[in-house]
Amino acid sequence: MKLPDPPLNQASEIAGDWPLHGLAEDMRPALAQALARGAAGLATIISLGEGGPRPVGAQMVFGMESRAGFLSGGCIEADVEAHARACMADGRPRRLVYGEGSPWPDIRLLCGARIEILVERLASDDDAARALLALAEAREPAAWISDGERRLCAPASDPAPTWPGAFSRRFDPPPRLVVFGGDPTALAVASLGAQSGFSTTLVRPKGPIAPPPLAGVAYRRDDVAGAVAAVGLDAWTAVAVCGHDEEVDHEALLAALPSAASYVGLLGARRRLGARLDRLRAAGVAETDLQKLRAPIGLDLGGKAPFEVAVAIIGEIMASRHGQPALARRPVSTPDGDGQAAKPPGGGKS
Amino acid sequence: MKLPDPPLNQASEIAGDWPLHGLAEDMRPALAQALARGAAGLATIISLGEGGPRPVGAQMVFGMESRAGFLSGGCIEADVEAHARACMADGRPRRLVYGEGSPWPDIRLLCGARIEILVERLASDDDAARALLALAEAREPAAWISDGERRLCAPASDPAPTWPGAFSRRFDPPPRLVVFGGDPTALAVASLGAQSGFSTTLVRPKGPIAPPPLAGVAYRRDDVAGAVAAVGLDAWTAVAVCGHDEEVDHEALLAALPSAASYVGLLGARRRLGARLDRLRAAGVAETDLQKLRAPIGLDLGGKAPFEVAVAIIGEIMASRHGQPALARRPVSTPDGDGQAAKPPGGGKS
Repeated sequence: MKLPDPPLNQASEIAGDWPLHGLAEDMRPALAQALARGAAGLATIISLGEGGPRPVGAQMVFGMESRAGFLSGGCIEADVEAHARACMADGRPRRLVYGEGSPWPDIRLLCGARIEILVERLASDDDAARALLALAEAREPAAWISDGERRLCAPASDPAPTWPGAFSRRFDPPPRLVVFGGDPTALAVASLGAQSGFSTTLVRPKGPIAPPPLAGVAYRRDDVAGAVAAVGLDAWTAVAVCGHDEEVDHEALLAALPSAASYVGLLGARRRLGARLDRLRAAGVAETDLQKLRAPIGLDLGGKAPFEVAVAIIGEIMASRHGQPALARRPVSTPDGDGQAAKPPGGGKS
Repeated sequence: MKLPDPPLNQASEIAGDWPLHGLAEDMRPALAQALARGAAGLATIISLGEGGPRPVGAQMVFGMESRAGFLSGGCIEADVEAHARACMADGRPRRLVYGEGSPWPDIRLLCGARIEILVERLASDDDAARALLALAEAREPAAWISDGERRLCAPASDPAPTWPGAFSRRFDPPPRLVVFGGDPTALAVASLGAQSGFSTTLVRPKGPIAPPPLAGVAYRRDDVAGAVAAVGLDAWTAVAVCGHDEEVDHEALLAALPSAASYVGLLGARRRLGARLDRLRAAGVAETDLQKLRAPIGLDLGGKAPFEVAVAIIGEIMASRHGQPALARRPVSTPDGDGQAAKPPGGGKS
């Protein structure tokens, strides 16, 4: 392993800049855009002291005139970018160390952490980058391995061939969200889902011809079966049934509960839940699939306004993605059970 | 009390319309806009059977060519609007009943609930409406009492003069959110706060001259004391300290913790928390005020991406506004305590 490079840029922040480029977590879309125009620079946190602001594997992508992602919240981004642009010019990878143990402690990390970053150049036809994007498109988990000079990207199901000095991380398929419904609450859920990085589709059978004016939200107005078949429900897909039409909701649950979808939630009155579950049972849905249902949907935040319900639902999906045990809740089979979940946010729909 | 009016409009939904008008919860801005152009129609849920989709007190406002709010999610809005426009024309208030017990059961409520609605006309110079808007501006809780013919709005602290047949509800001052910071996480928190109905101000001392390009977010770049004095921290204000500069964060907490602000949270590494609390104690912050601090900030959703942290923070603020006991957490005085809150979303800042 080479020695870390010295800081090139003493500025602790890109002055005058609001870092909107850091709002997205998944760097693959930015990488695809950058590579379409030429070579790209990729900066990856490969090692971290305790308490760092961003996890190991967090990345920034630099294109000809673009940047995306963030690594610290402002302490090091400008310096990393300077190194990345130098790397894009000369092709030589860099390992940068900031904070504790850095031989060049000019840039102070306020958190006191140690951040080690690999900076590498990806040619526009880089095989590993192409494989990464193709696997995302095919919705297969990918293993990314690189030492900055040599890179490999393969399906994560393959035995991972790694080597000394190489960093590896996993890329799951981009998370998806399917929202059934069309009322203000459903619109808020879809909008927040898209902003939070979910590839989001709003499904409203026989809905308006014009799509909803929500940035980043795809729209389908065909029937439930057609919409579900077109979108596909895999393990990285969450389904939020926030509909208004009991038949549509029922069909959506019939499709989603037995599917691989990792999260299925239903907005609706608790007192109607028993009858709806009975109807699903009668239609052949297995008990194990019914156990998957989050109903009433969402964290118990206590509010009923559209964005309150949206935060409750998207928050629950996030917690379930990260396996947060703090959010375990009573099983759906005892909807009138222990009373711990008073005042659900999705307490009813007319 | 008069008999309910019959449905005028059989359409269960406003065809072709995406109900973006329902995203806002607080009808006061829409009411102010409508009254600036003439008379307004106000529809209020005054009574509700079990499991209704919207709470008692939920409102819609109709102006010359505008509508805002929602009452059911699509079942009744078009009919309510038709009644409201008739009321705006003839001045006669209406009481509408939908669902169980309605003498005109033509419009079916899918939730099976009973919704009773008062529709009334407000002249552009209506005294009660003016008082309502003035009290919001003065940030005083208001009591609104109306039977559709006679209306009264007074500070909620006054003894409430109500009368038979009148409906009353309370209006708290519009919720506010002050976010300290300027990195992607702070931007996501401010943006989601504004979308969720908080009057939101992003404070970044010595930040860029140009405001952040976030819809609905006010911006201040003066020092902490000046910004806090200008915004004012009252009981309906939440403060999220998501800064990057330890001095700014410290000053923000010094101002916010002893204030009336109902929520104060700090994003930052758990391991640095003890030292930061000690510094606040040394600066004279009382233990009771320190107990108010939510640190690390936000629900334990497990993610660190900007919008994951934003959902965790805004969700915690919502839960605290609604007094959700499910979200009780360990006190800040035992930051390395019982281990229940593993993987906090705001695990660190560099």
